[in-house]
Amino acid sequence: MTTSLDRTAADLRAVLPPASVITDPDVLAAHSNDHASLCATGIPVALVRPRSTDEVAAVLRYADSHRVPVVPQGARSGLSGGANAVDGSILLSLERMNEILEIDAENQIARVEPGVINADFSRAVAGRGLFYPPDPSSWEMSTIGGNVATNAGGLCCVKYGVTADWIRGLEVVLADGQVLRTGRDTAKGVAGYDLTRLFVGSEGTLGVVTGITTALRPAAQAPRTAIAFFGDIDTACATVTDVMTSGVRPSLLELIDPVGLAEVRKHRDFGFPPGTDTVLLVQADGSDDDGVIDAFTTAAARNGGESMVADGVQEGRLFLAARRSIGLALEKLGSLLNDDVCVPRTRLRELVRGVGEIGTRYGVTIACTGHAGDGNMHPTIVFDAADADQTRRAQEAFEAVMALGLRLGGTITGEHGVGVLKAGWLERELGPVGLGVHRTLKSALDPNRILNPGKVLREF
Amino acid sequence: MTTSLDRTAADLRAVLPPASVITDPDVLAAHSNDHASLCATGIPVALVRPRSTDEVAAVLRYADSHRVPVVPQGARSGLSGGANAVDGSILLSLERMNEILEIDAENQIARVEPGVINADFSRAVAGRGLFYPPDPSSWEMSTIGGNVATNAGGLCCVKYGVTADWIRGLEVVLADGQVLRTGRDTAKGVAGYDLTRLFVGSEGTLGVVTGITTALRPAAQAPRTAIAFFGDIDTACATVTDVMTSGVRPSLLELIDPVGLAEVRKHRDFGFPPGTDTVLLVQADGSDDDGVIDAFTTAAARNGGESMVADGVQEGRLFLAARRSIGLALEKLGSLLNDDVCVPRTRLRELVRGVGEIGTRYGVTIACTGHAGDGNMHPTIVFDAADADQTRRAQEAFEAVMALGLRLGGTITGEHGVGVLKAGWLERELGPVGLGVHRTLKSALDPNRILNPGKVLREF
Repeated sequence: MTTSLDRTAADLRAVLPPASVITDPDVLAAHSNDHASLCATGIPVALVRPRSTDEVAAVLRYADSHRVPVVPQGARSGLSGGANAVDGSILLSLERMNEILEIDAENQIARVEPGVINADFSRAVAGRGLFYPPDPSSWEMSTIGGNVATNAGGLCCVKYGVTADWIRGLEVVLADGQVLRTGRDTAKGVAGYDLTRLFVGSEGTLGVVTGITTALRPAAQAPRTAIAFFGDIDTACATVTDVMTSGVRPSLLELIDPVGLAEVRKHRDFGFPPGTDTVLLVQADGSDDDGVIDAFTTAAARNGGESMVADGVQEGRLFLAARRSIGLALEKLGSLLNDDVCVPRTRLRELVRGVGEIGTRYGVTIACTGHAGDGNMHPTIVFDAADADQTRRAQEAFEAVMALGLRLGGTITGEHGVGVLKAGWLERELGPVGLGVHRTLKSALDPNRILNPGKVLREF
Repeated sequence: MTTSLDRTAADLRAVLPPASVITDPDVLAAHSNDHASLCATGIPVALVRPRSTDEVAAVLRYADSHRVPVVPQGARSGLSGGANAVDGSILLSLERMNEILEIDAENQIARVEPGVINADFSRAVAGRGLFYPPDPSSWEMSTIGGNVATNAGGLCCVKYGVTADWIRGLEVVLADGQVLRTGRDTAKGVAGYDLTRLFVGSEGTLGVVTGITTALRPAAQAPRTAIAFFGDIDTACATVTDVMTSGVRPSLLELIDPVGLAEVRKHRDFGFPPGTDTVLLVQADGSDDDGVIDAFTTAAARNGGESMVADGVQEGRLFLAARRSIGLALEKLGSLLNDDVCVPRTRLRELVRGVGEIGTRYGVTIACTGHAGDGNMHPTIVFDAADADQTRRAQEAFEAVMALGLRLGGTITGEHGVGVLKAGWLERELGPVGLGVHRTLKSALDPNRILNPGKVLREF
């Protein structure tokens, strides 16, 4: 075994600049996981850091002909183990392919390499008066390539959609090293199958994305923000439905549930009114959204909530601080298991209440905050990883949350992806025919099963 | 041969209600074409009109096991020959599966059968205060299933996107008769590969769509309309770019080119100012779009155009009448060959000018009107189908237009689809690797090549 692994590294050094092939066990270990908890990790044989599409193609040609698994990686900030090493794999890091190649303001598109950090790109286009909406919470560290691989979401999805909605075309290296170009630069196009969408969200299991053409839009105006305080979940959820069916389009509509709110308050006093149990936050980001704040405060009042409109951008940020500090507040309590179910908006109340009941049943703290406007919540389970019983209960609660999501007509993942964490659950969501089609596509595009094996789809 | 064809019909009558299987040659002939010109048509063996998913599955199971080609059909209003019969095929009409199953106002989704007419559906959701944006010009006759098959566009794409952007999930009968459900009811979801998008726009070559879940949005407000008159194409195109980069989102931005305008004027006097050579039309459809009309009139003035804002919805309709009457005006002149290229918006001027030059070179009239805001134009070639030389020149001009579109960084089809009309050109647009992936997917999902063979992809 060792000899064959050593040979892989030696062989890779023959097709790549030798310094791009790393075998130091400490470096490999440091690159073997993403941010997911409780996911299996294997032992890789090498980390490669190509600088060009040609180098990526050389790695895949080698890997395919030698049947060596390849795990594509961006910033490894994912939450489903999609970037975790598998045994005997080549970790293929795209972090050195990190150039913004073009920002075309007139056609409102940009061309980037996959390793560009989302925040760097967003700031670069903002400097040209433009806006790239996808804003996963990880945006300061995650890469556009990683966002494409997982079809990342964010706070602004409720108005602007997910990453896929902003991708015009891709350059993809296929399993056998061929370089495919999908999509086009134009605003519309229906020539052939939608290969772009097939690769977006496929988590490196169908090909390795080496180039991305994004759509852009003109910069939004500075956001207006409002907050509302409710005595219970039901009235807050009714407010969400009222706002979303009123005809306005908020650019953010977040909910902090009672459990999350209690933890945030221990962390810092935000001066919320007494009796507040659930909080909603809303933003409108331009002159085209004048009705949002009114619709929100009106709906909150109708449902018995008390609301405040921020006096300017600065105060708006302060309002959002409670939402943003939940992760920090929970991290102080222990290890976190992040879930990501999405349900039809009218089932939001049942989801939040049901998650609370699951926390009680399994004796674990579960905050259930998230993107209420989309019905996409992030139940976050706190547990002591050193306590085997608590870890087991956390895992059982995690499964119960996904079962609840499916029972409410929802999906096991709204934006984090499947990775290894949910590959078993994906089979339940897809059913036998859907699973069969997934396997057919995987087998057709990666016949030797070298691309991120065991991710999205369990080995078959 | 006749015996085998007769057997197909007899066999189909054993798996479907006999009245759903039609073999009358006149009926078959009437169902053998869509609205495309100059496309090959074969001789079918039967027309079947199933009423349920189970019946569609029975047809496909039979066809797959007996290697009989199947041509799925909606209203046959397509413009690329995608619904044309192929020799020995079963024409599979979905027109009897035409129920609106559910309109869920709170979650803003609807469930429909594929044979529902777009206009019927749009009116039904409007009656609930909701809006289904996709509005192909054929909307009074085309079906939602046909719109899904071709990923149809329309006038409002510039703000609301194409059909695919409004499809949450599908029920698809696969080649072997298995019933697949793709997508979900939720606003977001990244569980597995995006099968919904793979089937949308695949023109019946990968499966037969038998159920559709659409997204809806709250009804837009009554549109405001403006028109602007220019002395040449260049200043009109500069105005398009100025409007689209100004930060506003028109819900319609159409251009009438000099050739189209001349024909429309022969048809009817619209009282346009003297010296008008090119016309732009814009709409804004709500309170969220107050800046559109201002941005349009300002940009028009800056580029030397003269503009008028409609006084109410009624006058707005009058402004649009010129655009809508182009088809009628051209039909009076002869047969029409409709093209549908889409270029990056900044290349619009070159496209319209280039199409004019192609008309001159080949001695045919080509109007080049269309969805300027998206760079998606419909060069329409007028020819006398009884004149072989003119027909040949029309065809050559048609090819020259597509070559021009590709040269300008565009696509051969922005919204009409590939069908048989452009299957050869698709190969040029995709290139060998892209074509290879298309063939791989087709072979994987339809190994016996029974589904609409020769459409999108030439036989291989």
